[in-house]
Amino acid sequence: MIVPLTVSDFLDRAVIAYGDRIGIIDEPDQPAPSLGSLTYRQIGQLTQRYAAALDSLGIAPGERVAIVSHNAARLLLALYGVSGSGRVLVPINFRLHPAEIAYIVEHSGASVLLIDPELAPALADVPFKHRAILGPESDALLGCSQDPPKPWQRDEQATATINYTSGTTARPKGVQLTHRSLWLNATIFGLHSSVTDRDVYLHTLPTFHCNGWGMPFVLAAMGVKQVVLRKISGPEILRRVEAHGVTLMCAAPAVINAVLDAAQHSGKPAPGRGRVRIVVAGAPPPTRTIERVETELGWEFLQIYGLTETSPVLTVNRGRAEWDALSPSERAQKLSRAGAPALGVSLKIDDQGEVLAQSNVVLEGYWQQPQATADALSDGWFHTGDGGTIDEEGYLTISDRKKDVIISGGENISSIEVEDALFSHPAVAEVAVIGVPDNKWGETVKALVVLAPGKHASERELIDHCRARLAHYKCPTSVELRSELARTATGKLQKFKLRAPYWEGRTRQVN
Amino acid sequence: MIVPLTVSDFLDRAVIAYGDRIGIIDEPDQPAPSLGSLTYRQIGQLTQRYAAALDSLGIAPGERVAIVSHNAARLLLALYGVSGSGRVLVPINFRLHPAEIAYIVEHSGASVLLIDPELAPALADVPFKHRAILGPESDALLGCSQDPPKPWQRDEQATATINYTSGTTARPKGVQLTHRSLWLNATIFGLHSSVTDRDVYLHTLPTFHCNGWGMPFVLAAMGVKQVVLRKISGPEILRRVEAHGVTLMCAAPAVINAVLDAAQHSGKPAPGRGRVRIVVAGAPPPTRTIERVETELGWEFLQIYGLTETSPVLTVNRGRAEWDALSPSERAQKLSRAGAPALGVSLKIDDQGEVLAQSNVVLEGYWQQPQATADALSDGWFHTGDGGTIDEEGYLTISDRKKDVIISGGENISSIEVEDALFSHPAVAEVAVIGVPDNKWGETVKALVVLAPGKHASERELIDHCRARLAHYKCPTSVELRSELARTATGKLQKFKLRAPYWEGRTRQVN
Repeated sequence: MIVPLTVSDFLDRAVIAYGDRIGIIDEPDQPAPSLGSLTYRQIGQLTQRYAAALDSLGIAPGERVAIVSHNAARLLLALYGVSGSGRVLVPINFRLHPAEIAYIVEHSGASVLLIDPELAPALADVPFKHRAILGPESDALLGCSQDPPKPWQRDEQATATINYTSGTTARPKGVQLTHRSLWLNATIFGLHSSVTDRDVYLHTLPTFHCNGWGMPFVLAAMGVKQVVLRKISGPEILRRVEAHGVTLMCAAPAVINAVLDAAQHSGKPAPGRGRVRIVVAGAPPPTRTIERVETELGWEFLQIYGLTETSPVLTVNRGRAEWDALSPSERAQKLSRAGAPALGVSLKIDDQGEVLAQSNVVLEGYWQQPQATADALSDGWFHTGDGGTIDEEGYLTISDRKKDVIISGGENISSIEVEDALFSHPAVAEVAVIGVPDNKWGETVKALVVLAPGKHASERELIDHCRARLAHYKCPTSVELRSELARTATGKLQKFKLRAPYWEGRTRQVN
Repeated sequence: MIVPLTVSDFLDRAVIAYGDRIGIIDEPDQPAPSLGSLTYRQIGQLTQRYAAALDSLGIAPGERVAIVSHNAARLLLALYGVSGSGRVLVPINFRLHPAEIAYIVEHSGASVLLIDPELAPALADVPFKHRAILGPESDALLGCSQDPPKPWQRDEQATATINYTSGTTARPKGVQLTHRSLWLNATIFGLHSSVTDRDVYLHTLPTFHCNGWGMPFVLAAMGVKQVVLRKISGPEILRRVEAHGVTLMCAAPAVINAVLDAAQHSGKPAPGRGRVRIVVAGAPPPTRTIERVETELGWEFLQIYGLTETSPVLTVNRGRAEWDALSPSERAQKLSRAGAPALGVSLKIDDQGEVLAQSNVVLEGYWQQPQATADALSDGWFHTGDGGTIDEEGYLTISDRKKDVIISGGENISSIEVEDALFSHPAVAEVAVIGVPDNKWGETVKALVVLAPGKHASERELIDHCRARLAHYKCPTSVELRSELARTATGKLQKFKLRAPYWEGRTRQVN
């Protein structure tokens, strides 16, 4: 018997098997009225009402509903209710510029836009058929029908979400992920990270990002309590881990650093020792960070690797019994690799050193960009744009991403963090931060910047902008203005190309 | 991107990510030369050779390869190598009569028969194109090519195995399970039972049975060490749990009883306390048995419910945090239910009280029996033939199966165990053992028997036959000879119909 794999399966199971359980604890501290604690039965009812409201608004399955929001229960409800009823959710990065958000909304053809109250003033001019600020306004819009929702023709190959890739490219591209891709990604991720109904999950990852890596789906299926965290803060993460008995979270490396700092400054043992699993991706964290997670926090460190284009899980690295006897730093070294292919993923490295993947988690295509789709999927493989190697243990290591970590004077610097700081300057359209050789410090930070059309900024001004936001050691010591930056077919910066001229004649590309 | 879900994915991952790990420890005590310990890399190589040999024998993808064997590494290799290369494995119950085996082989159109050495004499007359006794003979046949296997056109909707349902029906039916069904069953079962690469699995379940419930597939994907056990023995199970650090096994209730007895008689604490998970299905065990597993053995008890026709996992019951505060017997009561629907399973109870299911794990059809297929899948639902109820917690309880447990004089009696004893009498073709009211004992055991054509047996002779094999309290106090027994579309005994006349005028159907 063939039953289409659709993301509604996950919440359906939660409602049947965990109806009385608290499914979501909304962020108490937010501009909209908090939804408090919701059982999975209530979540099911609310998402059914969302579906019925979309019916009554004339928004058919296949139509797009955009949302731009910090982490919030209402964002999770939209994920379950919009995608789960056959509409296509377009979750938008709340860090984007209003003009970029307007572009995404227009490009995706979304007929509804749901907006975080904090972002509403900046987005007041984005025109929409239906538009609501998350809170009473969206509750009214999405609760406008008391009818049961219409059944929809389930199709596992239909698009469930369109996630626009981060605004580091000139034009963000809409990654179309099908129900089948999301279903398999969530289930396989749950298997590899051993999600059980005894877990308590803290949303330390922006949910808009690859749909929270698929976690919200498998968490629902397993009846997991989900604690929403609106804004990242190390001390607040520790407080919630303790208060809610958190066992599982996903995070980018910067979040880990915030947690480690908070634990170090708290003057007491970190909560969750021997209980918490933290899944990290987004960039390979330094080995020392991994070691600190496992020794200072006593949390289990898992690494995954993937992209928005791959739902995202391509590889998984989780501590093995064989490594138990290793020293903490040797174990951290093992864990610093991207990992082994997840179930159902085939990887290979092409003769250019690029990582290629085949899997059901790979995107259907870029929304309305057939050429970009064809480029990314040429030869039947998805081209990640990342350089990597596969070792004798079958583990992938991303070598070009690794170079995103600059080591200057013995301090690790995340080039992404510096890029983020530069992006917050209004004149910056594109940026790549790289490490270049330096006699005193080994490496030093250089920023390559493309200015926005009609905007101006001096090298001094950009460095000062970073210094106002980051530790001084992280800030660029030089800035070069460029007209464009080398990128792959998938829009990823080709840092190895950008870095090459500065390292010419040297045997290593890191110092 | 769509990549067909085929069962080869599981072993492929094992070879890439766990090549150096021991994947299978073959039974040391068997008539064929034991294969000893095999790494997943070796398993991958052997199964590739199987595929190449099938190529060279002219056995194309889609053709059937039958195997009748006790648990053995070679049976697992056949599961991976035959189904994993696009051929259809037909694993046959080794308890069947040679005539039944011959029927299955002929009906399935198998062109190869692989035979356990112990069963070979009885099957000497079964005619075959290719036929080999498992051991040196099968190693030679399946190792006859040094060429790499030909690639096959992967298709997730192709049949991967045909499992003939147990010989309690007049004619066994061949349950066709597709790659997609087996893939999803294995992955979801792995998710619900938290299979990780730290597990060590003991094969206490006959592998032929629903392909070992799908476990061998997900075990490979997760790099789990699999310990083969050829014949069930309580003391031997305990010995291997200790020797190999076993953490996980699947078993029918009779196996649990053997383990409990062995632990009780060993005079020392059972090994694996706080470490072993045991997954039980096949019939609902008595609550007291569940309680004993958790208290006397200290093993975690999980129950699943399903049928050969459902790959098999339809429901899962695993102890919840909410039950931790209950008394052991209250907790056992909770665990005595079939469970909540597994991810992707929809259940309903029709107005006859029959359990119906929709899921990707439901069979494609009965091999060459379109009418039986249509009957079993009428109205788009699979008709399980089991009577059941769904409670307010969303949990299914199989009520008609529950009645397979007869309580007489305070002792639980498995009607299946008694049926098994009667089946071992050569004159018995079909049998149903039921509980009927008794003034002294509450219930007493009655056997309804259909004799084989041309065979004779008296009531006394059949009772004595049981007494020679079972504790006296379990034996029928009466036997009635019938010409046929009421069965459902899927060939399952309709015990409630058989029992009804004896319980007429009573409010309960159990005493």
